[in-house]
Amino acid sequence: MTLAIGVDIGGTKIAAGLVSDSGTILESVAEPTPDDATKIPAIVADLVERLSGDERPVGVGIGAAGFVGEDRATVRFAPNIDWREEPLGADVQALIDLPVVVENDANAAAWGEFRFGAGEDTEDLLLITIGTGIGGGIVHHGQLFRGGFGVAAEIGHMRVVPDGILCGCGQRGCYEQYGSGRALVRDARERVVNGDPAAAAIAALGDGGDLSRITGPAVTKLAQEGDPLSVELLTDLGRWIGEGAAALATILDPRVIAIGGGVAAAGDLILGHVVAAFETHLPARAHRPEAAVRLAALGNEAGIIGAADLARVEPA
Amino acid sequence: MTLAIGVDIGGTKIAAGLVSDSGTILESVAEPTPDDATKIPAIVADLVERLSGDERPVGVGIGAAGFVGEDRATVRFAPNIDWREEPLGADVQALIDLPVVVENDANAAAWGEFRFGAGEDTEDLLLITIGTGIGGGIVHHGQLFRGGFGVAAEIGHMRVVPDGILCGCGQRGCYEQYGSGRALVRDARERVVNGDPAAAAIAALGDGGDLSRITGPAVTKLAQEGDPLSVELLTDLGRWIGEGAAALATILDPRVIAIGGGVAAAGDLILGHVVAAFETHLPARAHRPEAAVRLAALGNEAGIIGAADLARVEPA
Amino acid sequence: MTLAIGVDIGGTKIAAGLVSDSGTILESVAEPTPDDATKIPAIVADLVERLSGDERPVGVGIGAAGFVGEDRATVRFAPNIDWREEPLGADVQALIDLPVVVENDANAAAWGEFRFGAGEDTEDLLLITIGTGIGGGIVHHGQLFRGGFGVAAEIGHMRVVPDGILCGCGQRGCYEQYGSGRALVRDARERVVNGDPAAAAIAALGDGGDLSRITGPAVTKLAQEGDPLSVELLTDLGRWIGEGAAALATILDPRVIAIGGGVAAAGDLILGHVVAAFETHLPARAHRPEAAVRLAALGNEAGIIGAADLARVEPA
Amino acid sequence: MTLAIGVDIGGTKIAAGLVSDSGTILESVAEPTPDDATKIPAIVADLVERLSGDERPVGVGIGAAGFVGEDRATVRFAPNIDWREEPLGADVQALIDLPVVVENDANAAAWGEFRFGAGEDTEDLLLITIGTGIGGGIVHHGQLFRGGFGVAAEIGHMRVVPDGILCGCGQRGCYEQYGSGRALVRDARERVVNGDPAAAAIAALGDGGDLSRITGPAVTKLAQEGDPLSVELLTDLGRWIGEGAAALATILDPRVIAIGGGVAAAGDLILGHVVAAFETHLPARAHRPEAAVRLAALGNEAGIIGAADLARVEPA
Repeated sequence: MTLAIGVDIGGTKIAAGLVSDSGTILESVAEPTPDDATKIPAIVADLVERLSGDERPVGVGIGAAGFVGEDRATVRFAPNIDWREEPLGADVQALIDLPVVVENDANAAAWGEFRFGAGEDTEDLLLITIGTGIGGGIVHHGQLFRGGFGVAAEIGHMRVVPDGILCGCGQRGCYEQYGSGRALVRDARERVVNGDPAAAAIAALGDGGDLSRITGPAVTKLAQEGDPLSVELLTDLGRWIGEGAAALATILDPRVIAIGGGVAAAGDLILGHVVAAFETHLPARAHRPEAAVRLAALGNEAGIIGAADLARVEPA
Repeated sequence: MTLAIGVDIGGTKIAAGLVSDSGTILESVAEPTPDDATKIPAIVADLVERLSGDERPVGVGIGAAGFVGEDRATVRFAPNIDWREEPLGADVQALIDLPVVVENDANAAAWGEFRFGAGEDTEDLLLITIGTGIGGGIVHHGQLFRGGFGVAAEIGHMRVVPDGILCGCGQRGCYEQYGSGRALVRDARERVVNGDPAAAAIAALGDGGDLSRITGPAVTKLAQEGDPLSVELLTDLGRWIGEGAAALATILDPRVIAIGGGVAAAGDLILGHVVAAFETHLPARAHRPEAAVRLAALGNEAGIIGAADLARVEPA
Repeated sequence: MTLAIGVDIGGTKIAAGLVSDSGTILESVAEPTPDDATKIPAIVADLVERLSGDERPVGVGIGAAGFVGEDRATVRFAPNIDWREEPLGADVQALIDLPVVVENDANAAAWGEFRFGAGEDTEDLLLITIGTGIGGGIVHHGQLFRGGFGVAAEIGHMRVVPDGILCGCGQRGCYEQYGSGRALVRDARERVVNGDPAAAAIAALGDGGDLSRITGPAVTKLAQEGDPLSVELLTDLGRWIGEGAAALATILDPRVIAIGGGVAAAGDLILGHVVAAFETHLPARAHRPEAAVRLAALGNEAGIIGAADLARVEPA
Repeated sequence: MTLAIGVDIGGTKIAAGLVSDSGTILESVAEPTPDDATKIPAIVADLVERLSGDERPVGVGIGAAGFVGEDRATVRFAPNIDWREEPLGADVQALIDLPVVVENDANAAAWGEFRFGAGEDTEDLLLITIGTGIGGGIVHHGQLFRGGFGVAAEIGHMRVVPDGILCGCGQRGCYEQYGSGRALVRDARERVVNGDPAAAAIAALGDGGDLSRITGPAVTKLAQEGDPLSVELLTDLGRWIGEGAAALATILDPRVIAIGGGVAAAGDLILGHVVAAFETHLPARAHRPEAAVRLAALGNEAGIIGAADLARVEPA
């Protein structure tokens, strides 16, 4: 058994794990993401140190939420961390004596699902991660699809509605404005603010006017309990996710589409609507094989597992 | 010098060429596409025979307008030819003694542009072919991106308008309903039928009520002569093409986007609008490298050149 | 009791009725609409003659499917009958000795519902007639809203989707392309043509490939029997109708919105979805009174009843 | 000559004028709108007092930005002033001895344009006021169209884009999110924030990063000086205004559509695009008379003039 370390640098938490060559996390540690981004390499090095026991890992894979350059070391830009053309790989490398490779976090997660999760039975996987936003990763013929500049698979910003809802990326009508957890929460809150009588159960979540208590998990729980508006909101969300997946399949032709991220927790409440919308909107459907649409298997650990595996099989 | 033969099977014409290893067509022949699709292999074999002179070609590459299976031999479905799970490669192979490989025609064209045309300086090319419809081909890290089932890059059917114009594929709002030659012609005719006074010059094309004389090239010519409505229609067309290209770049991250097909003949009248719309709609534009958008270089011969080259460098 | 005659000239049938001053049809007759539109005045005169018994009616009101001029006599244009600036009122008047007044058929139906049907309890009614297309009529403060040129309330052609589905009127994205019986049938047939497995019950309607047997009433019947896809299609239809109604209410502020036409036959299967979508999409909903949305009451006879009443209370 | 007083209560200013029966403002006064809405009646009474000289006015008309009840005295709701079911008419009436009538401000402006401005030659006018948002007023057959609850003509909140940009009213895709001054400013700032090189001239307005200096008038001035992006933004704005006007004309069938508000100051830079888009998008255009689209004539004083005239010709 060879070991490798995977690190997942997010906007709130830096998590790391010691991962076996069958994709099992043997040990995991985490620290909060510091406000001062210059402290991140030292924190990563410390987490790596804490995970390094008797058996020496073969390398460290770092998944970062941002545009990672084709050198697999530089973070060009991160939306939630103050990085611009940041030499993250070199900075961490200076502090540890294991080989380091940096990858976009959604790509790392896709790789993890491909190797040990929902894509184990295929060479051609599209992972759609539905969290606050939408992330994505593509595996084509067994290889990660990184794009010409390393910034492929930014699927959350594919435009799905011309002149649509404004997105944080500066454009309008992005997929993640319709198919993400943020969209679910925004829609639920709008119903409350507009005084929709059907929103009584949702409004009760935030009684005293505290809209911040109307969250994705809370609405999902209401739906599981049968609240009709919550069911409707999840149905709409599933429809948008599936329609976007159909557009992506038209371009990318994966054999498996895995749906991951927090929304996946809604499970059967949402997956059926995703599949139905996907199938209904796939062009020339009667004349082509169809991708299997299924839930992702590795949950939030996909990024750590995938990053560790990339350090093993694709060192920089 | 090694030679190879490229064949392009379209809905109206089967064209073939003897191609050098620098992408030059040394000799070319063609026949009409027969109504009876079972006759096609014999015609292809005959064209190959006519092109085979003293020096033996290394193989035959066939580009076909349809879904080509991952075996690179079977045509699963063709919109304009009566093929369903057609063993085209085997049928041609039975008639000739050169190795045969079948590829989707738009993929073959993208390969041709990558090797000898607008993508010669990159490893990551997206070709958008604007003809009656929209076709596309993707080269990623120097390899053709075929997808899990062999039917990737059907970019003309990416949905760009929810609940939009009905497409021949059975879906609504497909890219090719807005950004193709068919869209240009439909819009021009609509203006005439609706009695738009600004459409006088376009209406004059079809005087006597013959709308069939209002064609893409005719409208383009009017635009070149300064007809304001024709200029506006080409501007709109360029805008749609560019906005779709931005969505594709968000997913595929090419280094070069080449615009090919008949509409490319409008050249500067349209390219500037494509580029402007592309740049305006690229998400997080300030933080990422941008693809170069340019006209394709090989014209209608890209498919023959690319198919021949695939027979040479990627035999089945 | 005074009597009046109402005539409804449609694309397939000319129906007439002798109507009491409480809106009851005492006697009714009909003839097919002739291909030769010049024969229509004589047919109308004949129907009037057949309805004229011992008690002399006070006048004849004619509802016609088309643009009726502000003179309430001329049909400017009819989509399904060969009329352009047709002096229909004068032509009928030349044949009978009762006063004649011409009205748009949807306006006449709205008047009928206002006087004796779903709008009896209000002075401010919007009638939305969902048939093959969508028609509409507006009563404001107890008076018919005809518009400056007599062609108001063409609500079926309000644009609801930019760059949307092409309409017979020459524009795209018209309300009636999404919220009418034609839309229901088109969507149902598309599912069958696309080979959607969920469409098995609908496909069975047209077995042997006869799509013409997939009709609005047939799909409605399937929905009543519980076929999931038929239920979904009616839900979508109701949603579009309700969303359009919200846009109309924003402009017109009626106290009652009545939903008439053939689709109304789906009754509770559709009305609840119309109401829900209407309420959800009404701007500033918490701060304004809301129109009551209900089914129309007079069915297909609304036009005859309304036209007759207009001849009584608003002679030309 | 009879005199009347018109008052226009806006979010920042309360303006009043002494108006002749030919629509001339003989004297005008104004005060800032107080934060405490309970002080407004006293301010209105004071302004009325200051305008009352030797000749006694026949009444006071008050235009207020909000939903005005059908009693023409109560403000049901105002977006920018803290009023809910406010008895504004009665409160002012208690302080002065002239008859008082309250009207929605956009309705009052439409009435002013109808009587003395751009609608003087018609009985059927639609006024579209393009300011920060979009307001509207309808005159039909010489009478103000108030709707069943008094809240008609909220045209700025007609939905024009499904799933579109979120509006302050709680809905998405409202007309005023695309065709107002706010839309122009938002689009201009977005281009700057996205780092669009074409936005250099606009960015220079807010140099030092002060986006608040990028205003509608500033962009209009740049367009007048020939800045290509500013011209493009005004062209897009005009297109949206005209396309919305076509939808409104389909429903309301006015003979004249007047474009008022601050954006009208752009004059010919924008009107031509409004007219072109209106004509292109009018359904069945060849078969119906078309409304004349023109600039409003009375500027910001339309509301005062109209309110005063309503006090004269339609006292409560």
